[in-house]
Amino acid sequence: MIKYDKQHELDSVRGALAIRGEIEAMVDEVCERGFDLVCYMGIGGTWASALQAESHIKELSDLPVVVENAAEFNTLGNKRLTDKSVVVFSSVSGNTAEMVVALDALNERGVTTIGFVDHEDSPLAKGATHCIVYPENEQLKFFMVADRFMRNAGQFPQYDAYYAELDAHLADALVSVAEASDEFAQRFAEEHHDDDIHYFVGAGEQYGSTYSYAMCYWEEQHWIRTKSIHAAEFFHGMLEVVDRDTNVTVIMGEDAERPLAERVARFLPKICARYTIIDSKDYALEGISPEYRGYLSHLVTHQVTNRIDAHIERINCHPMDIRRYYRALDY
Amino acid sequence: MIKYDKQHELDSVRGALAIRGEIEAMVDEVCERGFDLVCYMGIGGTWASALQAESHIKELSDLPVVVENAAEFNTLGNKRLTDKSVVVFSSVSGNTAEMVVALDALNERGVTTIGFVDHEDSPLAKGATHCIVYPENEQLKFFMVADRFMRNAGQFPQYDAYYAELDAHLADALVSVAEASDEFAQRFAEEHHDDDIHYFVGAGEQYGSTYSYAMCYWEEQHWIRTKSIHAAEFFHGMLEVVDRDTNVTVIMGEDAERPLAERVARFLPKICARYTIIDSKDYALEGISPEYRGYLSHLVTHQVTNRIDAHIERINCHPMDIRRYYRALDY
Repeated sequence: MIKYDKQHELDSVRGALAIRGEIEAMVDEVCERGFDLVCYMGIGGTWASALQAESHIKELSDLPVVVENAAEFNTLGNKRLTDKSVVVFSSVSGNTAEMVVALDALNERGVTTIGFVDHEDSPLAKGATHCIVYPENEQLKFFMVADRFMRNAGQFPQYDAYYAELDAHLADALVSVAEASDEFAQRFAEEHHDDDIHYFVGAGEQYGSTYSYAMCYWEEQHWIRTKSIHAAEFFHGMLEVVDRDTNVTVIMGEDAERPLAERVARFLPKICARYTIIDSKDYALEGISPEYRGYLSHLVTHQVTNRIDAHIERINCHPMDIRRYYRALDY
Repeated sequence: MIKYDKQHELDSVRGALAIRGEIEAMVDEVCERGFDLVCYMGIGGTWASALQAESHIKELSDLPVVVENAAEFNTLGNKRLTDKSVVVFSSVSGNTAEMVVALDALNERGVTTIGFVDHEDSPLAKGATHCIVYPENEQLKFFMVADRFMRNAGQFPQYDAYYAELDAHLADALVSVAEASDEFAQRFAEEHHDDDIHYFVGAGEQYGSTYSYAMCYWEEQHWIRTKSIHAAEFFHGMLEVVDRDTNVTVIMGEDAERPLAERVARFLPKICARYTIIDSKDYALEGISPEYRGYLSHLVTHQVTNRIDAHIERINCHPMDIRRYYRALDY
């Protein structure tokens, strides 16, 4: 497969799962002390990952969880965040401008922060109450925090059994998905690499990843126009601009909101001839029990979209590392 | 002005303000009994209005407020909604499919509901704990509920002074905005009625209205493609697909998140030659104190976009009442 380092992928996922002990220690400390609110904060792709974690938590528990966009927090504020609250965030660079401003305000307010930062020597790594420096796997990190909080609240009793399966099988299972989807991904890239606009539809844990796939990959990295929309909202406006030749992809998971995505998938053939379904259900996850697949669907579809990206990059001769404006101009 | 009935507009806003007594009685009853959560629930345009109310409440208070999409509630659920919670919703038809299902579940759970429905003889009007039947003015209704909750919590002490100004001046002020913006609106419609795609950017109280203007007006009613994006998110992906000829409109208000929209407005001229700013600040609101303008900005810009719609409808010879698929096909 082009642009694929199997050993790196295996090591990356296994390494992420291995930080679980550190995560447990942090979350347990917060839970022992007590907390009034769990807030996932981010901007752009990290905000989208926060939405995914929120969806997972809402499906399984009544934990008080909110999502904050860092730039909105810096202007609108959130008076419900107190010195008893905990904010979870992630940043690759560790210097995301909006998040640096937000963290200062959070520290001033005495809010406990749990940060995942890829680079140790950065303002966000240094400023967080607790920080884990480990690259990539943002969603997995966010979900490990979520699962520990739910487990400590007695609402995720499957914790030990679930993570035993992940430790033993997740890395290999995800590599198998990448391998199994590569041929489809190449065909999809050949068909859509030059789209005027591509619509992406998702629901539940897949909504955040659908939003960020459209914006952070196709728009930011491939410079292809997209619109992402929640499957619940598709029928309240957007359907009117879909016709035979409209490029629409529904990204489907196996979590609680699957029926919303299925509804769009059932409807599309009536009005559209250029739709695609990317469904986590189409991929085996050896060693993972069926009842846990919903928690992981977004990691499965992410493997598929990663393969699409590799092929689009090659076909379009447009290296994904180039930015036109982002961090290139002042704004 | 084409498609404008000044007397109807005046009567409509004055009539909406006149239901405030009923709203106060409902909210006061809820507050006396106590509540654990205020939830605005909707789908499509009503979900977008809910986001507007949430932004207003977050700016001014620490009230426990959440927004729920009805279709998501019907699948994902929300375990935090209890028999001590209150759900506020709105529906023109009174039979929005997703909301009918949600209301049954809320009633079963003993949740108090406050509904605004335009048609009395409808499932949603009959099923709500409290229901007010009065047409149009959805945002004003939602904000009156919000303001009363905040006033009762001691966090909106300007309540009486503010509403005295609204009762005396809002209807006339909004008509003046419509009149003052009509010439701009005609020029804008002439320039953009045939756009391949139009990008709308908004923040704060304007985000919900920007989202619904793009989706419920341009897409659903004009069949013109759009993408709406939060100003906070613009710099995290979407900026890369904007170039000289991209149609971008920033809708600006005077609430707490105005700086986020200003940032986009300042940046656009560097990379784009077809951008437009619609700014509530450009319009006088006679009789309204400056410190209250932020609460009303979304009503101001809505007057402007209404005028744009009237002109696009005429130019495109496409009556806004027509739907291609919505409620025309099974889905």
